[in-house]
Amino acid sequence: MSFYELYHQIVSQTTSNNIQLPLSIMEHTFKKGTVITEKRAYFMKEGIAEMTIKSYTSEKIIDFFFQDEMFCSLSSFLTQSPSNVQINAITACTVESFTYIELQDLLTYSLEMNQFARIIIEQAYLKKAKREKDFLCKTAEERYLEMFNTHKEFILNISVSKIAKYLGIHPESLSRIRKKLIS
Amino acid sequence: MSFYELYHQIVSQTTSNNIQLPLSIMEHTFKKGTVITEKRAYFMKEGIAEMTIKSYTSEKIIDFFFQDEMFCSLSSFLTQSPSNVQINAITACTVESFTYIELQDLLTYSLEMNQFARIIIEQAYLKKAKREKDFLCKTAEERYLEMFNTHKEFILNISVSKIAKYLGIHPESLSRIRKKLIS
Repeated sequence: MSFYELYHQIVSQTTSNNIQLPLSIMEHTFKKGTVITEKRAYFMKEGIAEMTIKSYTSEKIIDFFFQDEMFCSLSSFLTQSPSNVQINAITACTVESFTYIELQDLLTYSLEMNQFARIIIEQAYLKKAKREKDFLCKTAEERYLEMFNTHKEFILNISVSKIAKYLGIHPESLSRIRKKLIS
Repeated sequence: MSFYELYHQIVSQTTSNNIQLPLSIMEHTFKKGTVITEKRAYFMKEGIAEMTIKSYTSEKIIDFFFQDEMFCSLSSFLTQSPSNVQINAITACTVESFTYIELQDLLTYSLEMNQFARIIIEQAYLKKAKREKDFLCKTAEERYLEMFNTHKEFILNISVSKIAKYLGIHPESLSRIRKKLIS
């Protein structure tokens, strides 16, 4: 999928107009292991990225981004201030991106762009709220199983240690969960 | 503040039009201790509410809502499906509210309503993301102090046990923190 296809899919639910993409989209790539800069908003054409945060004791992974998803350091993008999170390419990533300034200009007058941005932020909110609830109400095994079921095709490209960091458990505990699920 | 004043404040940043409120707003009250139903979106004119979730072991408080804030069970409101959270009036609450159906209809054509809804959801996202980061990067004492500084006038109306549940610590630990801060 491309960014234009995602935009079209969302905006066509609410308009019968001919849909043109008003943003200047840049396509670029990030090598595996590089930092994805936080000043732009991205659409993942291919690849996997992680969002990390440094806590008192260690580095935590608080999000993964997969193919066909919008992503960015949203708090930092929305407030245009430096952030304490970092986005890294876990695999080679091909992305499309646009700038905050161009988006803000469009948001002052474009109904379609407001609908698109609202729906993307709703989805980001729902994902974040679900993660909070899942941490409180589901076991690590249940959370891993759900991740496996929804992203089976991607999850094999993420190391056990990274998945464990995301689930908030020790890699040994995750290995035990995986063995139990296979048997 | 009223809901109309909040709407005007947000929408006037992006339009020079005469701003009319297109939603039917209902004002009502909830007695202290009652459940605030999840089907509508609310603006808090006066009072304090909490959002609770039942985890494996106990009930947790994941949010407080104060005067002049929009609130609802947002995941449930956005997806119009039952939720595993509950909103309760901690004090007597006077609220203004509107329905999902009326909002959705407006979102198909109103630029201003899309701008308003987008900004409200951005704020909800930022609050949720901040809570996640604070849990990872700040001590309970730092989080309490921040809560105290931003909501000093309201916090005295919330019991120690509820604040401790929100911070994810034992009430005894919170009492120690409070004593230390006073001395």
